[in-house]
Amino acid sequence: MSFNFTITNKLKGKLGRTATYETPHGAIETPAFVAVGTKAAIKGLTPEMLKDLGAQVFLANTYHLHIAPGEDVVKAAGGLHAFSNWDGPMMTDSGGFQAFSLGAAFGTNVSKIATKDSGYVQTEKNTRKDSMAKVTEEGVEFRSYKDGSKIFFTPEKSMQIQQNLGADMYFAFDECTSPQATEEYQREAMERTHRWAKRSLGEHKRLEKKKKSFIQKGKEMLGGPKAHPQALFGVVQGGQHLHLRKESAQVLGEMDFDGYGIGGAFTKEDMGTAVETACAQLPENKPRHMLGIGEPIDFFLGVENGIDLFDCVAPTRMARHGSVHTKKGKINITAARYKQDFSPIEKDCGCYVCGNYTKAYINHLLREKEMLGATLASIHNLYFVVHLVDDIRGSIKDGDFARFKEKFVKTYYGEK
Amino acid sequence: MSFNFTITNKLKGKLGRTATYETPHGAIETPAFVAVGTKAAIKGLTPEMLKDLGAQVFLANTYHLHIAPGEDVVKAAGGLHAFSNWDGPMMTDSGGFQAFSLGAAFGTNVSKIATKDSGYVQTEKNTRKDSMAKVTEEGVEFRSYKDGSKIFFTPEKSMQIQQNLGADMYFAFDECTSPQATEEYQREAMERTHRWAKRSLGEHKRLEKKKKSFIQKGKEMLGGPKAHPQALFGVVQGGQHLHLRKESAQVLGEMDFDGYGIGGAFTKEDMGTAVETACAQLPENKPRHMLGIGEPIDFFLGVENGIDLFDCVAPTRMARHGSVHTKKGKINITAARYKQDFSPIEKDCGCYVCGNYTKAYINHLLREKEMLGATLASIHNLYFVVHLVDDIRGSIKDGDFARFKEKFVKTYYGEK
Repeated sequence: MSFNFTITNKLKGKLGRTATYETPHGAIETPAFVAVGTKAAIKGLTPEMLKDLGAQVFLANTYHLHIAPGEDVVKAAGGLHAFSNWDGPMMTDSGGFQAFSLGAAFGTNVSKIATKDSGYVQTEKNTRKDSMAKVTEEGVEFRSYKDGSKIFFTPEKSMQIQQNLGADMYFAFDECTSPQATEEYQREAMERTHRWAKRSLGEHKRLEKKKKSFIQKGKEMLGGPKAHPQALFGVVQGGQHLHLRKESAQVLGEMDFDGYGIGGAFTKEDMGTAVETACAQLPENKPRHMLGIGEPIDFFLGVENGIDLFDCVAPTRMARHGSVHTKKGKINITAARYKQDFSPIEKDCGCYVCGNYTKAYINHLLREKEMLGATLASIHNLYFVVHLVDDIRGSIKDGDFARFKEKFVKTYYGEK
Repeated sequence: MSFNFTITNKLKGKLGRTATYETPHGAIETPAFVAVGTKAAIKGLTPEMLKDLGAQVFLANTYHLHIAPGEDVVKAAGGLHAFSNWDGPMMTDSGGFQAFSLGAAFGTNVSKIATKDSGYVQTEKNTRKDSMAKVTEEGVEFRSYKDGSKIFFTPEKSMQIQQNLGADMYFAFDECTSPQATEEYQREAMERTHRWAKRSLGEHKRLEKKKKSFIQKGKEMLGGPKAHPQALFGVVQGGQHLHLRKESAQVLGEMDFDGYGIGGAFTKEDMGTAVETACAQLPENKPRHMLGIGEPIDFFLGVENGIDLFDCVAPTRMARHGSVHTKKGKINITAARYKQDFSPIEKDCGCYVCGNYTKAYINHLLREKEMLGATLASIHNLYFVVHLVDDIRGSIKDGDFARFKEKFVKTYYGEK
């Protein structure tokens, strides 16, 4: 019923490893990809489909669930597992990413991953006048995506909400910054994130202690299933600045978190180094989660530099727009050239979709905006990334990581 | 591999019966509800979900599939079964319904089922200037729902398209009229439908004969599965006028169709009588399909008056708008009162959704426009109507039809 992180293999000369992470809702073999169901549902998929494609763990979003249906409803349902019918391990994020996506990034094309060429138009402040998120020492004032109403998240509030949502693992409240922010602002935000980490941890310990007697008595929290312990992950920030990443990981690594997230701004070129810099400072025997990353190359960079878990909306979002993974890179399956292509997306893919449907059918469904098109493309993409991370795990076990990485990258990104 | 309709039980003193209808893709136990997947996909459902909920047969729409992806694509895929991954019996309609839905009914609220109070604002003509369908002796000129381009369907063209789509059973090309049309126009349209029926049958026989050598040699039509025989159903019209219904059924009943559809305009109050009038004239040993009917009461009226098959988009369309069937009538599951209702839609419902999800979760998903909400509500509604017609079949076998009807109607429509 509790948490246990056991390293099973190590990548020679690197920080990468494989492990078994036991949680109250089952064990996760890591490295692993975490499927994202923002509003307590993977878009277009049942939990059975998610399990069938091989996903081990499901992450939902605190900001969205606070707005609808509200954590009171989820708690009264017996928590996220009972509410969504997913009985495996679950996570929630803290809402800290929305300090960026609804703040500095709102209404712009700014991504938390910038290239050195394009990404460094430094702005004076991290927040804009028309932004939907305002950061103060106390917390973040968000606007609701539904009606624009004000919502105030403090570290304590985020912990309380996430306790009520009832995922197995959840995150400390942090401020995700823009790669366009000045170094000065990145430091300011990082230091605030550290103070919030301490407040998050304090509130988490208070709430876990309060819950303990329920758990010992085997009691139900409300109408739902038995109460279970929850693990708290601290979130390392520091943006693209390696010395800040190091400092952040050192400070947080000394706090008594159950695991760590690596959040926030990156440069595309230095992402691996930034991750390595952070992971080198973190305690070895605790899981590390790279937040919101879903590009194939990033799984390799993350894993070899010490990451155990990844989550991202990209596989399902891409799918809804017709972009599907193949070993030779992404293809746009809605293109006219697939209209009469009666082969599967990939001949040797083991997923449900490739075993049963042609490109022509998925092309037709997506062009005609049939829901089943998004569902099928999402199943294929999730299968692809889940199994890619599984295969990376296997390659570490087999001592074959470097060769596997080279071959995959060459085929996926290579000669086009 | 061929067709065989065997009556197994009869309803005493009425035209109702149970039967086994063998088709090239398996047997259908009738009466049965046929699920509609307009564009070769049940909206939001995989074929496995459809099979799992108990559906025996799947109907797709010729007008829509002609426009996208085109019958050439479906034929090249190996026909609708291979294209959509549904291996059970399939049907296509003829496009004749669109003569009404894109003609007299286009842009209006006129339904093919009118009440005596509201439905008889007789109009001079069946087609309006701004309509998307124009009827001539030769056929119907439609406008495409996609780009407004002109499409001309003749009875021969409809047969050719439906042969290429490759469903097991398909329909003769007909003109579905508006209940608001004058009796004079209804007669004119009906007589034209009879001439079209003759042309449809002629073309069907020519195409089946041509296909025969392929079937005998066990050959593939194109790249897909083996060619199979197809059955043609004639469509009885005549609107709300009983003497026209009788005449239409007599004329068509003498033609060599494999089965019959009952199409077109009805009065709510006289639907049962209209169906009885038609079925009494039709050959007893051939299946009868009531086109586009999905209200619970109509299944009882249809079955007791001789109907074997029903199809309708209502269960899935309703579901997407939050309206779900219960034994006590429809409820709007998006209503605020279900936000914290942690019971299933129906406690004693055997469907996947009621076994795994609460009203609160489906309420949340539909309010948040999560695709899974439409999927779950659609599964429940399809299960409900499929099993209702199954139960009607069972009640005939058990000699219990009248009691079952009375009880169901009282609970579903009764004291609210």
